[in-house]
Amino acid sequence: MSITVVGSVAYDSIETPAGRRERCLGGAATYFSLAASFFTDVRVIAVVGEDFGPEQEAVFAARKIDTRGIEHTAGKSFFWEGSYLENLNEAQTRNTELNVFASFEPKIPGAYRDSEFLFLANIDPVLQRRVREAMPQVKLVAGDTMNYWIKDHRPALLEVLEGLDVLLINDTEARMLAGNDNLVQAARAVRALGPRALVVKHGEYGATLFDDSAPNGESAERIFKAPALPLEQVIDPTGAGDSFAGGFFGYLASQPELTPGVWRRAMFYGSVMGSFACERFGTERLQQLSRPEIDARFNLFRELTHLD
Amino acid sequence: MSITVVGSVAYDSIETPAGRRERCLGGAATYFSLAASFFTDVRVIAVVGEDFGPEQEAVFAARKIDTRGIEHTAGKSFFWEGSYLENLNEAQTRNTELNVFASFEPKIPGAYRDSEFLFLANIDPVLQRRVREAMPQVKLVAGDTMNYWIKDHRPALLEVLEGLDVLLINDTEARMLAGNDNLVQAARAVRALGPRALVVKHGEYGATLFDDSAPNGESAERIFKAPALPLEQVIDPTGAGDSFAGGFFGYLASQPELTPGVWRRAMFYGSVMGSFACERFGTERLQQLSRPEIDARFNLFRELTHLD
Repeated sequence: MSITVVGSVAYDSIETPAGRRERCLGGAATYFSLAASFFTDVRVIAVVGEDFGPEQEAVFAARKIDTRGIEHTAGKSFFWEGSYLENLNEAQTRNTELNVFASFEPKIPGAYRDSEFLFLANIDPVLQRRVREAMPQVKLVAGDTMNYWIKDHRPALLEVLEGLDVLLINDTEARMLAGNDNLVQAARAVRALGPRALVVKHGEYGATLFDDSAPNGESAERIFKAPALPLEQVIDPTGAGDSFAGGFFGYLASQPELTPGVWRRAMFYGSVMGSFACERFGTERLQQLSRPEIDARFNLFRELTHLD
Repeated sequence: MSITVVGSVAYDSIETPAGRRERCLGGAATYFSLAASFFTDVRVIAVVGEDFGPEQEAVFAARKIDTRGIEHTAGKSFFWEGSYLENLNEAQTRNTELNVFASFEPKIPGAYRDSEFLFLANIDPVLQRRVREAMPQVKLVAGDTMNYWIKDHRPALLEVLEGLDVLLINDTEARMLAGNDNLVQAARAVRALGPRALVVKHGEYGATLFDDSAPNGESAERIFKAPALPLEQVIDPTGAGDSFAGGFFGYLASQPELTPGVWRRAMFYGSVMGSFACERFGTERLQQLSRPEIDARFNLFRELTHLD
């Protein structure tokens, strides 16, 4: 089943211990789409400026991603500049230029309206909510957010959370959102705000799924852990979290039924896609990836964690 | 097969968000012995002062731990005071009194000399080496160390590492010892110093085993990850790492053959014992534990990580 994703399509200038790249194609919706496209059909809603041309369009086309929802307007695309020189696990933002994103009004093409899966990437919760409400037919809605919205736009974010099935955030964000340092207690508090499943991303330490194992609505809490792949060289962690979300949600959307086993495998596919994203600058690795490589790495993750 | 462990038997005063305890029985050799005693026979080499009496002796006796190698001398036992109020993952040391430990000269009872497994808990590497050399018959030697020895006693530590089969340390220590921030590269560098297996402990994120999968000496690197149990309340993390080591090494020593599967299960048993240690202050939880509880938690760890 197809996924519609709303989020940023952007340019990133990135510095890491491995080097520097100027104005790579980036943005949460870009990473998410590329990762999810290995599992199912993906449709993007975003806005770009005049600097987004055929070369960038071709990156989406090569993965058969539907870009009819990417609006082209006068001006420049969203731009982010960040450095991982201090800490490979957390970017230091040097510059953010919202540009055309400042007046983004998501428009949903009619052809997208039969999407059964919706991903609300990290953007203003007011926009997330608007897209959610415009697509009442979706079966499963997942979303991301960040510390900025948690701290300074809490009421709008809480309204989004009410309409989410799955929230994907990192440790710090989960603790901040819940106001609780214990992750098990924080997860329970976050899930009480709406999402029945919470995926907490731990960077180099993998990710944890908190949800209910009982599909009949009994409150049997379940916890499942996916590792991250120990990488010999992390070239660029930008987009790893969005690629995790794309692998995770893309796999879910590709399955006929969301059994507990499907959720567990989705966590592994999320980690698999996140690990690939770090291997090259920007979206380079995701652009060159093949499904057999993905499946081989999935098996590697199994060996990394399974007793037998 | 029996394990001989050399290390500290001490008193700890501990403050955590859950409360405060004065002068609990503690020390690396204490936690290690209690945890390992659920899997195999354990013999301790340590030194204590006049403040170590029948009540403390009984803790070891209840787990049938051989304490003939615990020397009793005039003076006070090693004392440590620490706080986890700032950070549950890392103690802040408030006070350390070496006391009788300052002049510790490990003496190995004749009855210990047929031990085939030796654990060198975190003490002065000069003493670790002396014990190692006095027990040439052992089949497998594992050890721990800490930032202090890595930074300021490197030559002595390097001599210990040459004689180790397994080193268990945390992320920061592994990176510091290797002078490399990438954990995969750091693990390779540390293993080049002697230990053919390295266990890196990640606190609340579990632990990673780096070793060779090929028992014939081919250099096929293997990585295996054990999760930590997400705990709803961490009462006191003191001794969790030593309890991990006890579960890990105790399980290895209990097995007739060290197959790759045995190493993987040892990692899980390590995490299991580490998780129990955090549930009460000091050694309280390890003292009350039963083997069925350990096996039930082992199965929980499997559910936490396994796809099927």
